[in-house]
Amino acid sequence: MPTRSQRKIADVVKPQPLADFKVGVDNAIFSVDTAQNRLLVLLVMRQQQPFLGQWCLPGTLVRQGESLEDAAYRILAEKIRVKNLYLEQLYTFGGPYRDPREETDKVRYLSVSYFALVRYEDAELIADGVSGIAWYPVKQVPQLAFDHNEILAYGHRRLKNKLEYSPVAFDVLPEVFTLNDLYQFYTTVLGEFSDYSNFRARLLKLGFLCDTGLKVSRGAGRPASLYRFNATAFAPFKDKPLVFI
Amino acid sequence: MPTRSQRKIADVVKPQPLADFKVGVDNAIFSVDTAQNRLLVLLVMRQQQPFLGQWCLPGTLVRQGESLEDAAYRILAEKIRVKNLYLEQLYTFGGPYRDPREETDKVRYLSVSYFALVRYEDAELIADGVSGIAWYPVKQVPQLAFDHNEILAYGHRRLKNKLEYSPVAFDVLPEVFTLNDLYQFYTTVLGEFSDYSNFRARLLKLGFLCDTGLKVSRGAGRPASLYRFNATAFAPFKDKPLVFI
Repeated sequence: MPTRSQRKIADVVKPQPLADFKVGVDNAIFSVDTAQNRLLVLLVMRQQQPFLGQWCLPGTLVRQGESLEDAAYRILAEKIRVKNLYLEQLYTFGGPYRDPREETDKVRYLSVSYFALVRYEDAELIADGVSGIAWYPVKQVPQLAFDHNEILAYGHRRLKNKLEYSPVAFDVLPEVFTLNDLYQFYTTVLGEFSDYSNFRARLLKLGFLCDTGLKVSRGAGRPASLYRFNATAFAPFKDKPLVFI
Repeated sequence: MPTRSQRKIADVVKPQPLADFKVGVDNAIFSVDTAQNRLLVLLVMRQQQPFLGQWCLPGTLVRQGESLEDAAYRILAEKIRVKNLYLEQLYTFGGPYRDPREETDKVRYLSVSYFALVRYEDAELIADGVSGIAWYPVKQVPQLAFDHNEILAYGHRRLKNKLEYSPVAFDVLPEVFTLNDLYQFYTTVLGEFSDYSNFRARLLKLGFLCDTGLKVSRGAGRPASLYRFNATAFAPFKDKPLVFI
């Protein structure tokens, strides 16, 4: 393996020709099963070589005339039905040797990854024609095809970040929830991050939660108040830097 | 222009063939001229068609065997000498028709953009062999080649975000500075964002600034205290969500 400076000298003498690429999109789609406090990611089983029979993130190769986003929405529409799905770009993985087909096809495969968080209860998986599709608990994800474990890890970091800095949790929680539901949701995504009473104080102080006046009884404890996210109260803070927890 | 659903039906009948790509990297490199309170971006003048003679972000096409990052560092090393330059990936632009060469070359051009903030005083431009290179005030950037105005706008948003949520400012400010220097720096990047006394109170409360005991006289006012960023005091907060301003 030549060092960076040796490569540089070689480049001056004779630069390498340009690389040819196919471009793929791969989607890291997360949801939270609030009933069982599990963070889930959508995986499909590969139906062809390479990595036949291995799990991977749902993805496709970009076609002529198609934008990256259109390709990402296309593959998603084939796998899942969900209201108001919003995808955002995550990261681009494009190093040499990330796809074994590079050797035979004489072309490199670059992956632009996309990220989404969807409401678990609303999302309907479409198994039609694929050999496998599953909401996999993130903690139990096996070795994935290609570098998809790395893409997944990157997506998980982005999700944690969004939870810390934006009210994205309220997009996927039920309309009304107890403060304990909310705490469980954050703990499921972030791991241990705060004790409940600090979390409760912080969230109430932000002023974006409104007490519905309703209470719910679960198990043995006192009935718990049901809250709702107040988007109007949040509006003036929308573009301000803010920490949620 | 067919609608999304019409296209989908057409795809079922006969999917479009895969697109072929060349992959470029383009760098949005920012610095702040603290003496004159200007936010600057590094531009070079195109030496070939398309867009001959127009300003653009420094970029290159990825070569065989080269990673995206290596390509980004390669082009940068040809344009600028600076200590400890750290590039991070920004966003990938890959829609059809973003490069006029697509028509003749029958290949699409995708751009993976990278972002950096460097210390203005340390950065030495290398004009060698290019027809133009300049630190351009962001407020006065002209129409750039390709979609580079869009990449620049995206980079500027990332820079604002980093300033709000991380201590990146202290990487590029001088070792010691007055609170007014710091305020000017933030104002230069963010625009009007806070009044000085709120900013001052917030920053001192964070506890990461340490008073050096030194004072500096500038102009007519009272001598101002010189502060230093205390990386040790900041260390426990490094991976915690935090707002700086």
